[in-house]
Amino acid sequence: MEKIAIGIDIGGTNSVIGLVKENGEVLVSGGIPTQAYQEVDAYVEALEEEIRRLLAEAGEKEVLGIGIGAPNGNYYNGTIEFAPNLNFKGIVPLVDKLKERFDYPVIKLTNDANAAAIGEMIYGGAKGMNDFLMITLGTGLGSGIVSNGELIYGHDGFAGEVGHVIVEKNGRQCGCGRRGCLETYCSATGLVRTVFELIGTTTLPSRLRDKVKEGDITSKMVYEAAIDRDELAVEAFRKTAEILGEALANSIAYTSPKAIFLFGGVANAGEYLIDQVKMYMEQNVLTIYQHKVDVIKSALPGADAAVLGASSLVWKEAKKIIA
Amino acid sequence: MEKIAIGIDIGGTNSVIGLVKENGEVLVSGGIPTQAYQEVDAYVEALEEEIRRLLAEAGEKEVLGIGIGAPNGNYYNGTIEFAPNLNFKGIVPLVDKLKERFDYPVIKLTNDANAAAIGEMIYGGAKGMNDFLMITLGTGLGSGIVSNGELIYGHDGFAGEVGHVIVEKNGRQCGCGRRGCLETYCSATGLVRTVFELIGTTTLPSRLRDKVKEGDITSKMVYEAAIDRDELAVEAFRKTAEILGEALANSIAYTSPKAIFLFGGVANAGEYLIDQVKMYMEQNVLTIYQHKVDVIKSALPGADAAVLGASSLVWKEAKKIIA
Repeated sequence: MEKIAIGIDIGGTNSVIGLVKENGEVLVSGGIPTQAYQEVDAYVEALEEEIRRLLAEAGEKEVLGIGIGAPNGNYYNGTIEFAPNLNFKGIVPLVDKLKERFDYPVIKLTNDANAAAIGEMIYGGAKGMNDFLMITLGTGLGSGIVSNGELIYGHDGFAGEVGHVIVEKNGRQCGCGRRGCLETYCSATGLVRTVFELIGTTTLPSRLRDKVKEGDITSKMVYEAAIDRDELAVEAFRKTAEILGEALANSIAYTSPKAIFLFGGVANAGEYLIDQVKMYMEQNVLTIYQHKVDVIKSALPGADAAVLGASSLVWKEAKKIIA
Repeated sequence: MEKIAIGIDIGGTNSVIGLVKENGEVLVSGGIPTQAYQEVDAYVEALEEEIRRLLAEAGEKEVLGIGIGAPNGNYYNGTIEFAPNLNFKGIVPLVDKLKERFDYPVIKLTNDANAAAIGEMIYGGAKGMNDFLMITLGTGLGSGIVSNGELIYGHDGFAGEVGHVIVEKNGRQCGCGRRGCLETYCSATGLVRTVFELIGTTTLPSRLRDKVKEGDITSKMVYEAAIDRDELAVEAFRKTAEILGEALANSIAYTSPKAIFLFGGVANAGEYLIDQVKMYMEQNVLTIYQHKVDVIKSALPGADAAVLGASSLVWKEAKKIIA
């Protein structure tokens, strides 16, 4: 019988569910609105219903397990802990709750960036790579670190918060309550903050100055302006790349990865981001690491990436059980 | 027959050799002057002679192998690569050269800080710990990172250069050719540099101001002055602890260690260093890591620490072979 893994990507708004083959093909997918549930038990009930509906749709399969990517997910405990963007407060023992409902060999949970890192290793550009770094550029900056072929979870399950490395003393205020965290500069949100800062501090001409009056500026608008050589947008990308390049140069000194993968919408801004990040990284890295580390766009397909990442937890774990 | 490991600590001036029991007891020790040899082959010849002399002195033993701690040591290749303080230039295949002379199951080499980390795990305060960070404070700042119970060597064997994380943009000049590296502030040398900076930039009273005229200021002199409440020396330690505490707070966001061990002469300055480092670290660390990470003085005995660290490579490797 064909083996499949169930991947669940839990976001603040929606939870996306996919039934995934080992080659990364998503057989069927569905989802439920996370934010519609105030209580975790009602949420888990709805999750089970949707999974059983998808399994019926997919037909006879051998399910190896469920992998979950969730904000503030703790791999060791299978819990979601104090996630600021979810209705479920405190520590939620999600894996235990799913084990009461499903009898699969593997039910595992981790945070979204760790799931993306394992996804890259199982389905993406990091196949066969033992040492790499995954950086996800979304609302914040997430990271997953793989060393010696294993994801680093740390003693408490919370390793890999590179977005909260302080890169600028007394720098920008961060949602975490401190100042100068990398993600306040290098993320979709950080890019837009840089645009506002440049509007205030420079006289660079920019069509984004007019957009401010119309409403929100998005990272996509900044990218489109940069493509049209909008001076302020180009400078915003340069500054983002400079700070990220410097931070990655420092990151290399910890785990000496073979490659750094960039994931998420902002990472698609090829020459404006990745090429410049690489340049600034090389300018700042210790000599012994020079010209050794690739900076690469994630090979995970955009739309399914989060679900694929989550489902990859199952294959990774299943291999350990078989081995 | 009693099992022993041979540990070799290669320094720019001397190479120290110890025959070590699994409990960390050094049976016999000796050494040769590294800097007396211009050619690596003559050096290896002398090393063999001294090892054979020590083995004869120790009597009938089962030797499991040789572990070597060396500057710029590469674990994967068994090489010393471009070590600035050794006479042997370029890439020295030391493990291969020793394998021609000794037929032991394990002959392994790594850099001194990695050796100290494994030493801490085998003989010291990190027994049974799967995730910790070792920071060695000597002329420079070395580091060894253990995650999932394994030392992180990185894709090229050179992971763990936390001393060369840039903590101050356009900061102090570093021997590596860049500016603002952590070790230019936090090391025996960095502490003395801070004293000079404070002599120049403050009017703090200090007996160290007179010492400058007499010749070199050492980190030991700064420590003794701090004990006597010398204002400038106390401030030099405070500043060192502040920068190190901030840097360690950032380090935690990578691998989330259970503990950070500080090793080397400067680490002995208890309340002046470790207590303050811990305070600044807690002030700067991300909330989810607060009050979770210990900062501890290495439990490796000072005089034998480097040789113990080197020899521990053998036990670590031997366990893998048996397992």
